[in-house]
This record gives sequence, C-alpha cells and structure tokens, in this order.
Amino acid sequence: MPQFFDIDDAEFEARFETLLNAKREDSPDVDAIVADIIADVRARGDRAVLELTAKFDRLDLTADRLAFSADEIAAECAKVSDKDREALELAAARIRAYHEKQMPDDRSWIDDIGATLGWRWTPVSAAGLYVPGGLASYPSSVLMNAIPAQVAGVKRLAICVPTPDGVINPLVLFAARLSGVDTIYRIGGAQAVAAMAYGTETIQAVDKITGPGNAFVAAAKRRVFGKVGIDMIAGPSEILVIADRHNDPDWIAVDLLSQAEHDKSAQSVLITDDADFGRAVATAVDKRLETLERRAIAGPSWRDYGAVITVRDLDQAAALSNRMAPEHLELCVDDPDALSEKITHAGAIFLGKWTPEAIGDYIGGPNHVLPTARSARFSSGLSVMDFVKRTTLAKMTPAALRAIGPAAERLAQSESLEAHGLSVRARLDHLNES
Amino acid sequence: MPQFFDIDDAEFEARFETLLNAKREDSPDVDAIVADIIADVRARGDRAVLELTAKFDRLDLTADRLAFSADEIAAECAKVSDKDREALELAAARIRAYHEKQMPDDRSWIDDIGATLGWRWTPVSAAGLYVPGGLASYPSSVLMNAIPAQVAGVKRLAICVPTPDGVINPLVLFAARLSGVDTIYRIGGAQAVAAMAYGTETIQAVDKITGPGNAFVAAAKRRVFGKVGIDMIAGPSEILVIADRHNDPDWIAVDLLSQAEHDKSAQSVLITDDADFGRAVATAVDKRLETLERRAIAGPSWRDYGAVITVRDLDQAAALSNRMAPEHLELCVDDPDALSEKITHAGAIFLGKWTPEAIGDYIGGPNHVLPTARSARFSSGLSVMDFVKRTTLAKMTPAALRAIGPAAERLAQSESLEAHGLSVRARLDHLNES
Repeated sequence: MPQFFDIDDAEFEARFETLLNAKREDSPDVDAIVADIIADVRARGDRAVLELTAKFDRLDLTADRLAFSADEIAAECAKVSDKDREALELAAARIRAYHEKQMPDDRSWIDDIGATLGWRWTPVSAAGLYVPGGLASYPSSVLMNAIPAQVAGVKRLAICVPTPDGVINPLVLFAARLSGVDTIYRIGGAQAVAAMAYGTETIQAVDKITGPGNAFVAAAKRRVFGKVGIDMIAGPSEILVIADRHNDPDWIAVDLLSQAEHDKSAQSVLITDDADFGRAVATAVDKRLETLERRAIAGPSWRDYGAVITVRDLDQAAALSNRMAPEHLELCVDDPDALSEKITHAGAIFLGKWTPEAIGDYIGGPNHVLPTARSARFSSGLSVMDFVKRTTLAKMTPAALRAIGPAAERLAQSESLEAHGLSVRARLDHLNES
Repeated sequence: MPQFFDIDDAEFEARFETLLNAKREDSPDVDAIVADIIADVRARGDRAVLELTAKFDRLDLTADRLAFSADEIAAECAKVSDKDREALELAAARIRAYHEKQMPDDRSWIDDIGATLGWRWTPVSAAGLYVPGGLASYPSSVLMNAIPAQVAGVKRLAICVPTPDGVINPLVLFAARLSGVDTIYRIGGAQAVAAMAYGTETIQAVDKITGPGNAFVAAAKRRVFGKVGIDMIAGPSEILVIADRHNDPDWIAVDLLSQAEHDKSAQSVLITDDADFGRAVATAVDKRLETLERRAIAGPSWRDYGAVITVRDLDQAAALSNRMAPEHLELCVDDPDALSEKITHAGAIFLGKWTPEAIGDYIGGPNHVLPTARSARFSSGLSVMDFVKRTTLAKMTPAALRAIGPAAERLAQSESLEAHGLSVRARLDHLNES
C-alpha cells in the first residue's frame, strides 16, 4: 500500500514534509574508488581503460577494438526489426523537430551611448554521451542525448556504452547511427567518463559529457566537472499525477506504474480532489501489479514511495506540486491549460488525459532527460542549450568611452585595482589631448 | 619576463601545448574539511555557523545578528561617497538594461499531428549570492550576480559576505541594496554555502548559489551541487589580447596588467602579428610595473604566466585563441568584427581599441562572471539564464495519440517497460472501442 494523505488532516504538513525530504537513493560512497580510477586513466591511458574493462565488464579488448568498427555497427543495425526501426525513426524526427526550435538567437544592438552590445552562441566542439549497459541500455536515451547535440551543431559526437560480457543492444547502435554519432566505444563506468574527459591514446577528449549512469558514473561526472561540462547528476525517476474524478482509474494506475517500473527507488504520486477516486486508483494499481512483468520492481516502488494525496481543490494541488517540483507532471483535469499556468516548478508537464507520460519518454518531442529529486526548482531538462555557449560582445566608440569610462575608472579605484583604471585613463587622456 | 613564442619556431607546438595545460591554480585539498563543515551545519544549524564564524572570522555573533539589520545597512550605505554612488548606479542601470534582453521567450505551437508542444520559463524562487570578504570583496561582483537574478524574477535574494574581525565594505552593502537583495548575512566560507543550501533556524535555504570564493567555498559548492544549483567553479582570471601594430603599446600593456593585478595566478597573453610590437608591449609592461600599486601581484603573474606570441596573420591568431578559449578576449585590430566572426570559444569579446576589458568588468553591460581555465569551450558567463528554468509542455489529442501512440508502445516494448506501453495502449483501446 502507498501512503494516503489528506490535506485537512492535522498531521498532514509534517507527513508531507517527510515525503518531500525522503532520501530515496542510497548511493554507495564510491568517491575514493572513482578518484583512483580517474587518476589511473590519466596516468596510463588506454592501458588502464583496457584493464578496467576486462575487470568490470569481463571483456578482453585491445586498443584498436575500443570503438565499434563500421562493419560491426552495420551488422548490429541489420538485426533491428522494421517495426523498431520505423518507431525509432519517427521518434528521432519528432525529437529533432522539437529541439530545432530551441536554438537560441544571437543579438546585437547599439545602445544610448553608441556602444555596440550583444552576444553570440556557438556549439560545443565535441560531446560524449554516456549510455548505461545492461537492463537500462535504452535506445530512446541515445536519441534524447545525441539529437540536441547534433541540432546544436556539435561537430564530434562520441558514445560510451559498456558491453558486459560483450553483449550489446543493437537498438542502441541503431539509435546512435540515426542521431549522427561518430564513434561508439564499448566501455563504461568511471573509466569511460575519465577517458572522455582527459582523453587517451585512442579516445579523443570531449568538451561536454552527458547521460545517465550508476553511482560510479555519477561520482566520476561530479569529479570531472570543470575540466569538461556535464549535464546533471540524475537521481531516481518520479511522476506526479494530478487527476480529478473524470478519469478512468486504470489509466492513472498504469501512468503511475510507468514510473514505478523503472526502479525500486522511483516515486509515483497522485494528487486528487476526490478521495474515492484516489482509492479507486490505488485499487487499480494493485490489480495491474498482479500481472505486470516488472512487478518485482514496480511493487516495492509503489509500496515504499508511492503516495495518494487528497486535496480540497486544484489550487491546493498546484501548490503541493510546486513544493515537490516533480520531474514529470501529468495534469489529467478538465482544463489542464489553466492548471498548468499555476505550476512554477516542474521538469515536464503532460497536459490532459490523452498525454500519458510515456509519450514524452519516447516520441512526443520534448526531452526525457529531466531534473529529478526536486532539482526542477533550479534546473531544466536536457536541451540544445546544453550544447551551446554564449560569448558576450561589447564595442565602445570614443564617445561611448568618454560617456562611461570615468565611472569605470572610479569603480576600479574603489576596488583598489589601479591597472583597471589606468587602462581606461590612458585612452581617455588620449581623447582629451586630441 | 614573460615567455615569448613564435608560431614558426620548431618547438612552438610543444611549448604552446604546455602553456595551454599549465595548472596555474594550486588549490589545497580541503574537501575533507569542507565535508565536515557541511555535516556540522546540517546537524547543528545556527550553532555550528556561529561557532565557525567565531573561529574563522574572529567574530562573535548571535543568531539574531547573523543578518545585517536595516539600520546597519543604512548606516553603512551613508558612508558611500556621491561619486562612488553615482558610478555604481550607472553600472547597475547598464548591467540591468543588458540583462533584460536575455530573458528567454516561452514558445507554444501545434504540430502536424495536432499535438500542442512548447515550453515555459519560470524563475528560481530563491537565490543566494556568495561575496568574498577582505581584499576581493568587490561591489561590482554583487551587481553582476544579483542583477541577473533580479531581472529573472527571483523572489528572494540573499547574500553571504564574511566580515573578518567585523570589517565590511560599505560599497558591498550599497551594491546589494541597489540590486534588490533582501537579506545580507555576515558569514562566509563553507559554512555559508552549507547554510544557504540546507538552511538553519535563522537562514532560509535557497535554490541556487552563485558567486566566487576561495578553495573552501569552491569545494562546498561542488558538494552541495544537486541539492541546489550552482553557477560554476571559477579559477584564476585570464585575458588574451590580439593586437596588431596599430596600437599604442602602453594601452595594451595596461590591459594585460589589469588581469595580472587580480591574482598571482592570473594569466595575461598577447598574440600579435608583429614581433617588434610584441617586444614593445613587453617593455611597456615592465615600465608600468615599476610604479603599479599592485606590482607585487601583477609582477609574478606576468613573469610566471604571461606570454607574447607572434603569428604570421590574424587567422592564426584566431585559431590559437580558439584553442585557449579565453575568459576575456580583446580584439585590438583594424576590423575587430571580422576577426570576431572567427572566434568560436571565448567568454567575452571586447572589440576594438576603445574597449579595454575593464569596461566590461564594471560598466559595459555584459556580465563579468565568465568561464575560466578554458571552460568557455563548454560554458557561458553568468546570465539571466542561470536564474530561470524551463518546463517542457506536451498535449496530445485523441487523433495525435492515434498517430504516434503505437510507435511509443513499440519502443516501450523494445525496452521491456511494459507499463509504459500499457499507459498508451489503455487509451488507444478506448479510442478504438468508441
């Protein structure tokens, strides 16, 4: 059973705070191990990567086999069924169309003193995408990471995907080829992150690393942050559904389970203005759990972290949602647009009952790499913006420098930065002399 | 003497690589100490902050005196001279005008299958700005951090500024008041970062922490990243000047020194297409260094990390600049706009000889918080974008779900995520029945 809450209960506030602050992730502290791995890869390059791959993935490689060859990729892609191929192609086209609209504009203007100001966006030169191996090796994540980079204009795109015991998911290679990836390395873990950040004899360093991973990958990304850019440190997935009684309880139940089945630490929460509807959804979840393939994952997630919250009205629902700052938010209400206007913190909103969150995971167009663990309070999902950076531009004329130079000189003096002031003064003196 | 390079020398490439990879910062490893401080603040709140402030800043406070009172702020602001006040007000107005143009637009559109897609930007609710104490307590940095947050619409803005032995810079308080800061705490170090990230009895937690600091502050920001957002981990400042012979060597000399005077680890580099001009600039630097107030800082910076590089033409200069990805780039050439088009990685560009970098530090309009240590390869200066986040929006119609739902279901099956598929299938079945 999930937890049930009623906003009018005396203990609601305390219990809701506990729900908000529950630590769902129990990551082992692997920081010391990861520090050693990164140091090893920096010192010994390929040799370290090959040894670590043999050790962790039980896979003996040589430097020339770190990357998949074109023939290997073609052979794996040939295994992809027509149906899967078409579905991935449709997804890629829709994701690309959405992300193309994200490309930000350059700006330039002349202000009131005659100074030309503005900025210009340029793409990151090279990006590396981490793709987990095994169960969580999702072709959809390849598209969601690679396509924004490709749209941004990133020239060189690499993927690292571990292949424990040599097993690879052909769909991952197909998705990579579909989204313009240049090189696919069959390595994983902290060693893959270190190799992408610092480079080895065989693996060229990149400027930005994105993509999800286990505790080792997360710790490695945190450590190389600064040397290269990273996207975010993702935690377990979560969904919040706000639904009124005008919904089929079973639809809401499968929506909640579609998060719960990701991970025992995933969280699915329903907020409704009808307590009976909330109970009906919980009953429908239990019924689906009897037969769901991943019930051994979804069941514990729902029991340990699931919640059904009853509120008096949808304004209260929006207020609680904003405190949760959910990664995914479904608004299954009569006027989802009006309710959406009241949402200030959420990674992605799915409006109306015809938009189950799974549509966003695969094919809607928006990115499925989204801020977890309440980080939608301060961060956004992956986008083209993660693969571009802005250069600011300023150009003074003699008249503009005359207008504002003295104030700059004054501020430099107040901060005891004499040379700053002199760099302005030398020019102003010249203007005054001439 | 700085290092001299000629791109035609046989050993140029090796020496330039060494220059690129020189580690200028020798941060002590304070991570273990910082971890303890954060744990202490989380466990004991105000009490820990007060004890650590007494220990590190030699300042005995009580909880009710952690923040400056309105009277204290008014009294300090009254000490600011009219000239300083006017200069800061002009700077604030120009910085605000520039950053107001950065506010990104919301988008919404209906695509070919009738789905409504888009995104919406919302401000971070609360931001905390770290301002170093002592020598590096710059009022200009208060403006550069606070104004973008204010423009973004951040509702609550706090500052932490340590006041060792109780000493405060009145200009910092004035700049804070000018840029809409609500609360100013007289605390610093890792304890201030921990208090802003986790909150204490007196200090309300924020969602995003920005601003420069020493090794303790940097380590603390890295540790709380994820719990809150952070801007960047800033390193020592740097400038690259590309100048042809049509410049006064002394102007270029003071421009180079305006970086060198920040920090012994700062770096100033000149690239010129005229070796004689390069030598003339080096001579002018030496002359200025004889009398510069901060020669004990600027001298070692120039000697240890300064460089004068001679190239054959400006295309070569642009190519080297892109490999350096400088924080600040001055283009003192006849056609700076044309040269600027060739620059792919730089934090900020200052175009033409009337735009010394100091203008950008104070009053040009663009932000002076910029990516250091070659991180302009993948990141941007501080902006309004750091204080907003994007929520993606998707709304299907029954027809849209019919069009793309089957492909989503297929992809869910290929990833063995049954409930994802069921959430689509339940709706499609309903549509097919009706």
